[in-house]
Amino acid sequence: MRDDGRVTSAATRRRMSAGELAIWRALVDTTAELRRILGAQLLRDSGLSPADYHVLLALSEANGGRLRSSELAAEIDWERSRLSHHLGRMERRGLIRRDDCSTDNRGAEVSLTEDGTRMFRGATAPHARAVKRHFADALTPEQFEALDDILRTLQNHLHPEQAAITREDLHV
Amino acid sequence: MRDDGRVTSAATRRRMSAGELAIWRALVDTTAELRRILGAQLLRDSGLSPADYHVLLALSEANGGRLRSSELAAEIDWERSRLSHHLGRMERRGLIRRDDCSTDNRGAEVSLTEDGTRMFRGATAPHARAVKRHFADALTPEQFEALDDILRTLQNHLHPEQAAITREDLHV
Repeated sequence: MRDDGRVTSAATRRRMSAGELAIWRALVDTTAELRRILGAQLLRDSGLSPADYHVLLALSEANGGRLRSSELAAEIDWERSRLSHHLGRMERRGLIRRDDCSTDNRGAEVSLTEDGTRMFRGATAPHARAVKRHFADALTPEQFEALDDILRTLQNHLHPEQAAITREDLHV
Repeated sequence: MRDDGRVTSAATRRRMSAGELAIWRALVDTTAELRRILGAQLLRDSGLSPADYHVLLALSEANGGRLRSSELAAEIDWERSRLSHHLGRMERRGLIRRDDCSTDNRGAEVSLTEDGTRMFRGATAPHARAVKRHFADALTPEQFEALDDILRTLQNHLHPEQAAITREDLHV
């Protein structure tokens, strides 16, 4: 174990600059604005809220189109009480189904209904067009490349173990 | 007026690539993860939720530390009903005060209390340290420069009128 109290790199010793903090806030604000614009467009185009779409996307990418509610909560990063209320509303609209599993505490099994699958598929193309118009059309290929690099760097920083494994895999 | 049905640029004609959509999703997921990590840290360090911090930040940057609730809702991009419930909870904790203004429909005047100001100031330094550790420490100066350029480009794309004014101002 490293003694973090004594051994500090230049990066951890220096303070964050005002410019860096401003870029952090611009990142948060710009992505929040894009999420708001794309969320409003999604609702107009498809009758789905961003929360609905997020749940349907996670289920559509899950094995067999079903997840335990605890897995779903982790996947979409919501508190379980918020998710439970939202799933109740989606169930009443016929978008998902919940089947109780009393054998363990991972929560009900949540699955896509046919209506939910159809609504999600219908929403996908207009949503992709909106992402293109408000986001992708703005950026050059060089900016996409730089953004890809930045996001991978941030992900490796957030998950250093995974980054190490990936590097090892590549160099075998 | 341009006939958008006939005159389409290469950028608007082509479809978004799978790679671009993946980068969009990585951007949404990475910023969501950073917000979650920094939000949990904020709560541990300061007893403030990200929602509390967002409201206190907007008020602390407003003229005189006060905003109409409609302005506050626009500033932090929340629906007024959600904001109203949250302000009720913050008022009971003594962080903000609401004074009714019956003369117009812009909602109550929301202002920082002394306790709210103190809590916000106490939260700022640990929050900046967390932003540094989880975000800023990951990136090189070149990546910061590229990210700054990308965010400005996206903002100009979202607000073309403002971008035109800024360019004009610079070239006077």
